Amino acid sequence: MEEDTGALPRKENFSEWYNDILWRAEIMDVRYPVKGLYVWYPHGFGIRKRAYGVLRDLMDRDHAETMFPLLIPKTEFMKEAEHIKGFEDEVYWVTHGGRNELDVPLALRPTSETAIYPMYALWIRSHTDLPLRLYQVVNTFRYETKHTRPLIRLREITSFKEAHTVHATREEAAAQVETAIALYREFYDTLRVPVILSRRPAWDKFPGADYTIAADTIMPDGKTLQIGTVHMLGDHFSRTYAITYEDANGEQQYAYQTCYGISERSIAAVVSVHGDDKGLVLPPEVAPLEVVIVPIIVGKRRDEVLASAAALEAELRGAGFAVKLDARDMRPGAKYYHWEMRGVPLRVEVGPRDIDANTVVAVARTGKKTTLDRRGVVEGITSVLAEFGEDLSQAARQAMAARITAAETLEETAEAVKSGVAVVHWCGSQECAEKIEAAVDASIIGSDIRSDLIAVSDGPCVACGGEGTSALVARTY
Amino acid sequence: MEEDTGALPRKENFSEWYNDILWRAEIMDVRYPVKGLYVWYPHGFGIRKRAYGVLRDLMDRDHAETMFPLLIPKTEFMKEAEHIKGFEDEVYWVTHGGRNELDVPLALRPTSETAIYPMYALWIRSHTDLPLRLYQVVNTFRYETKHTRPLIRLREITSFKEAHTVHATREEAAAQVETAIALYREFYDTLRVPVILSRRPAWDKFPGADYTIAADTIMPDGKTLQIGTVHMLGDHFSRTYAITYEDANGEQQYAYQTCYGISERSIAAVVSVHGDDKGLVLPPEVAPLEVVIVPIIVGKRRDEVLASAAALEAELRGAGFAVKLDARDMRPGAKYYHWEMRGVPLRVEVGPRDIDANTVVAVARTGKKTTLDRRGVVEGITSVLAEFGEDLSQAARQAMAARITAAETLEETAEAVKSGVAVVHWCGSQECAEKIEAAVDASIIGSDIRSDLIAVSDGPCVACGGEGTSALVARTY
Repeated sequence: MEEDTGALPRKENFSEWYNDILWRAEIMDVRYPVKGLYVWYPHGFGIRKRAYGVLRDLMDRDHAETMFPLLIPKTEFMKEAEHIKGFEDEVYWVTHGGRNELDVPLALRPTSETAIYPMYALWIRSHTDLPLRLYQVVNTFRYETKHTRPLIRLREITSFKEAHTVHATREEAAAQVETAIALYREFYDTLRVPVILSRRPAWDKFPGADYTIAADTIMPDGKTLQIGTVHMLGDHFSRTYAITYEDANGEQQYAYQTCYGISERSIAAVVSVHGDDKGLVLPPEVAPLEVVIVPIIVGKRRDEVLASAAALEAELRGAGFAVKLDARDMRPGAKYYHWEMRGVPLRVEVGPRDIDANTVVAVARTGKKTTLDRRGVVEGITSVLAEFGEDLSQAARQAMAARITAAETLEETAEAVKSGVAVVHWCGSQECAEKIEAAVDASIIGSDIRSDLIAVSDGPCVACGGEGTSALVARTY
Repeated sequence: MEEDTGALPRKENFSEWYNDILWRAEIMDVRYPVKGLYVWYPHGFGIRKRAYGVLRDLMDRDHAETMFPLLIPKTEFMKEAEHIKGFEDEVYWVTHGGRNELDVPLALRPTSETAIYPMYALWIRSHTDLPLRLYQVVNTFRYETKHTRPLIRLREITSFKEAHTVHATREEAAAQVETAIALYREFYDTLRVPVILSRRPAWDKFPGADYTIAADTIMPDGKTLQIGTVHMLGDHFSRTYAITYEDANGEQQYAYQTCYGISERSIAAVVSVHGDDKGLVLPPEVAPLEVVIVPIIVGKRRDEVLASAAALEAELRGAGFAVKLDARDMRPGAKYYHWEMRGVPLRVEVGPRDIDANTVVAVARTGKKTTLDRRGVVEGITSVLAEFGEDLSQAARQAMAARITAAETLEETAEAVKSGVAVVHWCGSQECAEKIEAAVDASIIGSDIRSDLIAVSDGPCVACGGEGTSALVARTY
């Protein structure tokens, strides 16, 4: 829908590349007339649709999907003091309906604890109601005062998948945190996006949580992007909202809770981690279009080539691929450019020579060419796509590994965070964290690191020299 | 999650039945602390999920899914005078972000024309961009002052599927109206919900439309429920929002538009049309659970029965059915009651006698029992479910036919609308409509009726005796 003028900036100029690819690959339109609100183009939404299909399938294994209201009465919202403190500067308030001022202002949910937990208090009566594991995919709102950025820092998060679970004991809730982490790992494995898990510092945890485990990926400019969080809520909210159950002995007990979320930052990660100088690169698992067929038309064998391409399209569609025959009256090169920009994993070329040789040529988005036997084409495409996906995983993993540096001193740390994540030893004190952050212009983002790319160890704190353990330092989105 | 005390009111007391079944069948919880906002229980959301899967599949044939922001700046919202007039008393306004008053208040979309069309003006340049057919499934908001009712009259419509199309000519837009009507017919055929299509009177059309075609079903109390609307917008909005394209001759032209929507009223229709004194009755196409297996455990053959039931579950799941083995330690009768209330289309009983005879007993939700050969059980279940669905369609159609009465006089009309829809002759004037409405305490809901249950004809207006044609009169939700 846009005129395709100029060229995509090189990806090494990441910020320009990111802004540009959003419209060139038809992911988001930034021209909506409210700051921080963006429009999903159909192609972008197609990626979102497939990615959230993957996410829903994972959640549906042992969660049920549901939906709670967007509007939260101020009276409920204000019940949980620590939680409010975390959000009160960021909440949008509805104050009028028609021409009437509302008696009680309504918050647009920044997240849904205060909408859901009063209902949980009604729903949960007995230990037989537990565990309760629900999730919803909804829009949430933050009145961001910082610089907004499509898919990353939004005033309307259009695609917040939030899960809220309730358990009989603290141990069961803690186990659910681990289950959620495993689900999120699997989700990002499918998206071919490598993540590092760590425990956020106490001052950076979710407002109202005992602790927060976050999944971060490293963006091409070396800054980390938080793309998933899992919160152990303990009995903090259950005491505020009176979520109690009768145990097997007939005693009333407070329940224990967890919540965890993923937003369209997951799509930002796919775009940023895999894209290249030619445009988007989509893993087959989230590509709205997995295969595009480009007929190579030469003179008088036009009809024959088009018929052969159409037969191939029908066969691949029948086998379950999302496939499109691009029969537009354009040069093949212009078609290549068009579909490469949009990240289609595989282009299949069909020309007179292929017909004669009974082959097709499959070109992966990353350039690898494979000549496939026309007869076993479904198996051939399946295997080429699988290999392409595996290549993306490996490349992303290597790129992440190259952006992680162990640092022994503040000087090394300051250098490392310019292009990635520094792993330092830190004593755990807020005082030292502040010293480190001031010295290196980056943040302590977590400890208790879980990543097979990082060897954790004990050692002297990079700030005070006291006993420390491995922690991540990074500039963040 | 609720205590199952008392009994479902009989369906002939429809209003009580409806309120009661919403929680007994775990569809919606009405206890959310804001008027007009309700919570989807997982079972209710499961129905919604399947029904909207059907709807998305229909739309995806030649529409693309997308998503636009919820918040509309007052400045854009106020551009289209007729449209505003239709909505201004119903709009929720966001006036504050954090502690700041916003410069421009933001409307919560009551519908998305004013959010989408400024973007369409940017996207559409040339006749080659047309037709454009997009849709989204989003939450929309109405500050309803009337009595609210779950799924029917809401302050947050959680599940509004709205499509917005753009065309080069008025004729193409009019043809799209017919395409949309055909899609909606197919949708409701799949839900086994009969509909009557008609053109709304001019004073009841969508604000800003040339004309509105609506789909109504008749509820058990005889009132009609509007469950789909298709609007011909002409060039009304394209002139306001400057949606123009360059035609093949290089001339700028205003585009023509349509929009059409379906909400969770579709779920209200499924609940109301098919339900009975025992609870919900779900068509197989929208049932989150199609088959429940109840083992009939007798004494010492317990393990054998459970193993046989588990094998059956595995076989049916493998064949693609949404199936559950209910192995809870409860009387079979209590299980029957539980799953009947929730509308599961088919119960399959497996007991020692079935094992001996190599059969299973399939009981449709409406009571019909079929003994199936265990060997061909997948085919057997498929055919029983298909027959059950067909029976639902027929029963719903007959119930609707019984609620339609041709009326020659105002007295007959007044009598007919007590239990259903009256078909009268009407001259088309607003004056006569008002006379009729005052005399019979019901509304003219449409003319140009399309229903194979209604024979349309010309005849003297029931109010003035002038030339008239068939029109629908009904009490409405």
